[in-house]
Amino acid sequence: MFEFHLEATRGLARAGRLTLPHGTVATPAFMPVGTHGVVRGLSAADVARAGAQIILGNTYHLHLRPGESVVRAMGGLHRFTTWSGPMLTDSGGFQVFSLEGLRRIDEDGVEFQSHVDGTYRRLTPEGAMDIQWALGADIAMAFDHVVPGQAPHALALEGMERTLRWLDRCKARHAELTDGRSDELTNGRSGEPAIGDPLEQPIARPSDRPFVRSPDRPLAQTLWPILQGGTHDDLRRRSLEGTLERGPWTGIAIGGLSVGEPKPVMHRILETLAPDLPRETPRYLMGVGFPADLLEGIARGVDLFDCVAATRNGRHGTAWLPTGRINVRGAGLKGSTEPLDPECDCEACTTYPRGYLRHLFVVEDMLGLRLVSLHNIRFLVRLGEQARGHILAGTFDGWSREWLRRYHARGT
Amino acid sequence: MFEFHLEATRGLARAGRLTLPHGTVATPAFMPVGTHGVVRGLSAADVARAGAQIILGNTYHLHLRPGESVVRAMGGLHRFTTWSGPMLTDSGGFQVFSLEGLRRIDEDGVEFQSHVDGTYRRLTPEGAMDIQWALGADIAMAFDHVVPGQAPHALALEGMERTLRWLDRCKARHAELTDGRSDELTNGRSGEPAIGDPLEQPIARPSDRPFVRSPDRPLAQTLWPILQGGTHDDLRRRSLEGTLERGPWTGIAIGGLSVGEPKPVMHRILETLAPDLPRETPRYLMGVGFPADLLEGIARGVDLFDCVAATRNGRHGTAWLPTGRINVRGAGLKGSTEPLDPECDCEACTTYPRGYLRHLFVVEDMLGLRLVSLHNIRFLVRLGEQARGHILAGTFDGWSREWLRRYHARGT
Repeated sequence: MFEFHLEATRGLARAGRLTLPHGTVATPAFMPVGTHGVVRGLSAADVARAGAQIILGNTYHLHLRPGESVVRAMGGLHRFTTWSGPMLTDSGGFQVFSLEGLRRIDEDGVEFQSHVDGTYRRLTPEGAMDIQWALGADIAMAFDHVVPGQAPHALALEGMERTLRWLDRCKARHAELTDGRSDELTNGRSGEPAIGDPLEQPIARPSDRPFVRSPDRPLAQTLWPILQGGTHDDLRRRSLEGTLERGPWTGIAIGGLSVGEPKPVMHRILETLAPDLPRETPRYLMGVGFPADLLEGIARGVDLFDCVAATRNGRHGTAWLPTGRINVRGAGLKGSTEPLDPECDCEACTTYPRGYLRHLFVVEDMLGLRLVSLHNIRFLVRLGEQARGHILAGTFDGWSREWLRRYHARGT
Repeated sequence: MFEFHLEATRGLARAGRLTLPHGTVATPAFMPVGTHGVVRGLSAADVARAGAQIILGNTYHLHLRPGESVVRAMGGLHRFTTWSGPMLTDSGGFQVFSLEGLRRIDEDGVEFQSHVDGTYRRLTPEGAMDIQWALGADIAMAFDHVVPGQAPHALALEGMERTLRWLDRCKARHAELTDGRSDELTNGRSGEPAIGDPLEQPIARPSDRPFVRSPDRPLAQTLWPILQGGTHDDLRRRSLEGTLERGPWTGIAIGGLSVGEPKPVMHRILETLAPDLPRETPRYLMGVGFPADLLEGIARGVDLFDCVAATRNGRHGTAWLPTGRINVRGAGLKGSTEPLDPECDCEACTTYPRGYLRHLFVVEDMLGLRLVSLHNIRFLVRLGEQARGHILAGTFDGWSREWLRRYHARGT
């Protein structure tokens, strides 16, 4: 049920097929981010029409609102969001470390202040497992200690080693959950009650409404570890070694990149790790990226990506085109009857003239935000599809080089 | 091409079929408002899926942004918005009279200050015709002088008589446009240049993109007059007499209602007008309304309605149900796996549980605004469909009474 079948390689670039309880993901693939159980402004049907095969849910955000107990009582994240395909949840680690304001890290976990209501909360490796279990994702991520992109060796070492110790705890807790040895979800090392809302709702009862499906198969969830070590090659290697010792894993994530370090550094780290990453295990580069980042990552062996840039840029009126980015608000689009991207098959590009999309931003109608977000998602999803096709055909290197040349000729 | 076929009556309630250049409208019918050439937050496809047969565009807003010349250069409002069905534009009269800040009314027209950039502009009967002609709607509305709902007899008389004088000018100008006697669109009585942006764009050239269709048939547009007279029965009768003297018309609108007067007064005016309105002419009640208003209007002979309440309420999280309205943000919806309205066939009600819709409003995701707007539009559109079915079946009075009883039992 958690299988990765490597179909072809071209240099380091790989094409594969990841089988999960809710479906299959042909890789390389971009995974849109459904922060609050929704890809900003888009319906699950929109995202599916854009060709996305898997989406990501944010544990931190869903823990705060509506709370994992509410999601669980409603039948899990798939029923809650109506996204019936594969789903991955992050562990909350990255969000908690990115929070402004108070957060206190100790060996047990992280104390942080909710950005919603200012209350103090605690997230631990065990708690992160419990929340993700309650949410019911196909893939749960280990709780990691992220350090800034410019972190010195000592700090990066501390974060990397703690991430390994926390991985032990995540693995143990996930095994308990999987084996049904845990009668009650907890949030601490010693069995305190789960954080978040108590179970306020009875378990959803079956009904004939389409969104209340027959009960799912018993929860099948896999746990993926996250590599840390900052920008230091030696720490990255030790992180990988330590992680593999704790395996086997059905997938391995590379965290702590795209957090402020220069792009060549990210590329070097990927190149450092590539030879030692298990060939038959999918590789997920977290929080990446922009169009060019996808191709650079794929060229260095990455199979799976996620990033909010597609929707964030879309909401701000920046659309990605094969010739670089464009500001949809730009005066040059006024009155234009051309499509936004003549090479694109998304709803925005096949339905509306540029002049209308610009008008939507000028009058501040949210349809514009939705359409450009959708275009950017389709753009990244298709980039994954195209890369896959070229890897299978053995033409990836030349195609990728030419694609990047054209893209960078005008923008980034 | 502009025909109304009356199919059945039940008391004053009527079911008919209005044939327009871009399609047919089965009446009674609710017409969603596409203020800026977009029904707030919804795509043309969304609105079509909600069953809407005709939409309204706001002349005032489209004149300011993007300007009628831009819309004309892009092939007209249908191509601009991708709404291929029937479309009606208002005359800008109501918007101009509702504007805060300076507006100066004289016999020639209205000088007003743009809410967008504060510039002073002038709108005249001829200008309103020219703009609507450039936009390319199926139905253009005459430029009218609207007075507040509580206007005394003298002021209502002035507005009503001016509306008739302006109707003469609208009719003359529309005839010139229709006959091709006007080489250039103008905005004044004496042929000044058209207001708004000059023609900046060449006429859209054909292409193989779906939204750039082959050139439309030559523009066919009909002009509908608007009855005024405030809340004064004698003035309303004189407005109708004067309007009919200037006919014949393919449709007649009732304006200046739902502008602050009590609902029983609106009902009385409709009852006053009904016997003298031409039986074979569709009757359009402008700016109405809420669900109960639709049924009350239909019972008094109205065939066509428009109102922003459906989308405005939707954006604020108020959904209309057969049992009255509901606040989608309400704590009672938390965790609910029930549909928003089990009797509704819209996307929101057939796809999502209440608990998820509430969550979207709590986390302020615009998908929530879109879904509840869509539900409310579908609710009004279906109310028109249901009323039509009951009129045709001869069961309208009983059904309508029972519907209103149930609706008012909990809310309004």
